[in-house]
Amino acid sequence: MEELIEKGKLAKSASRVLGSLSASVKNNALLAIADALEKNSEFIISENKKDIDAGRRNGMKESLIDRLSLNQARIIDMAEGIRQIAGLPDPIGEAISSIKRPNGLKISKVRVPLGVIGIIYEARPNVTADAAGLCIKSGNSVILRGGKEAFKSNMAIVKVMQDSGYNTGLPVGSINLVENTTRESATELMKLNDYLDVIIPRGGAGLIKAVVENATVPSIETGTGNCHVYVDSYADLNMAHDIVINAKTQRPSVCNAEEKLLVHKDIAEKFLPKMLKSLSDKGVEIVGDEKVCEIYPGATEATEEDWGTEYLDLKIGVKVVDSIDEAIKHINNYNSGHSEAIVTDSYKNSQKFLDKIDAAAVYVNASTRFTDGFEFGFGAEIGISTQKTHARGPMGLKELTSTKYIIEGSGQIR
Amino acid sequence: MEELIEKGKLAKSASRVLGSLSASVKNNALLAIADALEKNSEFIISENKKDIDAGRRNGMKESLIDRLSLNQARIIDMAEGIRQIAGLPDPIGEAISSIKRPNGLKISKVRVPLGVIGIIYEARPNVTADAAGLCIKSGNSVILRGGKEAFKSNMAIVKVMQDSGYNTGLPVGSINLVENTTRESATELMKLNDYLDVIIPRGGAGLIKAVVENATVPSIETGTGNCHVYVDSYADLNMAHDIVINAKTQRPSVCNAEEKLLVHKDIAEKFLPKMLKSLSDKGVEIVGDEKVCEIYPGATEATEEDWGTEYLDLKIGVKVVDSIDEAIKHINNYNSGHSEAIVTDSYKNSQKFLDKIDAAAVYVNASTRFTDGFEFGFGAEIGISTQKTHARGPMGLKELTSTKYIIEGSGQIR
Repeated sequence: MEELIEKGKLAKSASRVLGSLSASVKNNALLAIADALEKNSEFIISENKKDIDAGRRNGMKESLIDRLSLNQARIIDMAEGIRQIAGLPDPIGEAISSIKRPNGLKISKVRVPLGVIGIIYEARPNVTADAAGLCIKSGNSVILRGGKEAFKSNMAIVKVMQDSGYNTGLPVGSINLVENTTRESATELMKLNDYLDVIIPRGGAGLIKAVVENATVPSIETGTGNCHVYVDSYADLNMAHDIVINAKTQRPSVCNAEEKLLVHKDIAEKFLPKMLKSLSDKGVEIVGDEKVCEIYPGATEATEEDWGTEYLDLKIGVKVVDSIDEAIKHINNYNSGHSEAIVTDSYKNSQKFLDKIDAAAVYVNASTRFTDGFEFGFGAEIGISTQKTHARGPMGLKELTSTKYIIEGSGQIR
Repeated sequence: MEELIEKGKLAKSASRVLGSLSASVKNNALLAIADALEKNSEFIISENKKDIDAGRRNGMKESLIDRLSLNQARIIDMAEGIRQIAGLPDPIGEAISSIKRPNGLKISKVRVPLGVIGIIYEARPNVTADAAGLCIKSGNSVILRGGKEAFKSNMAIVKVMQDSGYNTGLPVGSINLVENTTRESATELMKLNDYLDVIIPRGGAGLIKAVVENATVPSIETGTGNCHVYVDSYADLNMAHDIVINAKTQRPSVCNAEEKLLVHKDIAEKFLPKMLKSLSDKGVEIVGDEKVCEIYPGATEATEEDWGTEYLDLKIGVKVVDSIDEAIKHINNYNSGHSEAIVTDSYKNSQKFLDKIDAAAVYVNASTRFTDGFEFGFGAEIGISTQKTHARGPMGLKELTSTKYIIEGSGQIR
């Protein structure tokens, strides 16, 4: 696709300059971009309105229309997000290690940008500004491929970012939006190995699966979270109750929300009736194993499929287990490698759970909802990796970098 | 393919145990494996002989027969390699960072194994022991898929490793060899996402391309090296001469050998005649641009294709450049992101080269031949990554690990 090759070339060439820019040039550009987004909010909102009107005509669901919609307050949030990114420490140039070898060679490992980052996402125009801001700050060019339903909004945001960014020192080609929004353009972007160093999907399970299956560019699997809370026999049951309510109901549509509750058999009859009543009062639909249905008649029977499903909704799967070992085995079998929690006051069991659970984030006595770049203190995040290579868990600026070995000698040969 | 699913399940289940083994259990097992390889050398050599005989019958080239061949000395080397791996520090369990958040959550990032590693390689039976040893030490199960020409040798080595390793504390399933050596088994292994956490190719450009194009499992591109040495106008010409001879001729078949020589125009007429004569005396075929052919009549004209080609042979492409900027641009345009060197006594030029060149290893005044896990002090390597995600440059034990966030609380909710 000619557009992709052209933008790939431009992005790669810009990345050679962008990667060596000083922190102050990048930060000034980001601050100018933030101001420009606010100053041009009317233009962005009017373009966004065209997307919304088209969405309504095409029968888009109201929840999606809400995600797509921009208003003055949301654009100010967007600009504030960019200002926060400008305020974070610059990750580039850090010397990670430096050794002197017996032959006198000085070998240093330094942090450098990845180069060109592709981001594929759905109809959420706020991702456009957010992702571009993170890429610029970490010295990377970006090629954005957003959902076609948000195309006019994305074009407006990118135009504002390009005009203000290129006027304040960013090389032309740092920020690119793919204008062809067919499925083919996404698939081709995933295979643009000559120009892209990594591709990151931001969106639902379908998008992520498409990237994993089709990308030949190194990709980072993000975001699906079939998260469990295991309430041990040694748990403080009030604490467990509050953690489950928070993890399940505070924001059920996000990837770090709880999807499954495992309860030790010794406390099940004491704990579950009140717990499940509270969940039900919050509007949560409950499916459970046989034991759960016995204890709590409001539950319906869970299917095998339930245990592996991320509901992203007010629904929970509940299971009674005979032991912590059964809990660990169940979780490692069905989880998506995102966030898992134990509630216990047993030191031994807490350590076993931390050691044996295979996930990006493993919790003792806290809600799974904390798996998030802001909550982890990174200041921002591009997504949450659920794979084990490159980065695992919340990805901040450092996770958008690579390294380079620098070897300084005085004529050494082998 | 049933075999792959079965071995995948076995490897994944073994990895749950292997990942928590203490360093001493893993090291004892590795030492037992090393002893067993030596003790069973006759069996391994007799199986290897069957591969060699078949290779000869099928007209295998002598250079490949040599790579395939095992003898007493090579098996002792193999065992010594395993003992060295046992002696290296255990990478697992290291706390990489630990912070306490304002809400009291203690968030630690700890080093954990990747899980299950797939290795696809060619007819080099020494890779079997080497790769399995590195995976075990880093707490990972391994699924090996070696070239069919070395199948009996690999089976023998793996059997000896399994018997001795499983008898000394490694879980059954830690070490697996794919017995189906059709092209299909390799392709399917690259897509075994349910069981594999990463796939690493070890071999030539064709194998690596196949993995990049077909793998849905996260993969690590390794090893192609179109490496350049740029001799600046401020170079010590004797130093430059020795570095080029070493980088080009000491071992021309490896990925960190020099393939291209760039020379600043101001010193070209002084430097090139002696340099190219020396290379020619070592049997190196020289292709060059117009200027080079003028200065040195023994050179033939280089084609556009030459500049992007990794010869892995006694052949070199030579070009005269007008400036360091032209050299940098040429290198970033044609290199494979492996190893690049400048020879100069200009501080400014050395810094510019280190900053602007996009490669895993960038050298000042030293031979590119040092890009190697042993030379970098890692003690061993599984390969040299030429991609930017996960790991870049020589990959030692640490590069075979992932991380996990451990979050300890006292009932925190959002």
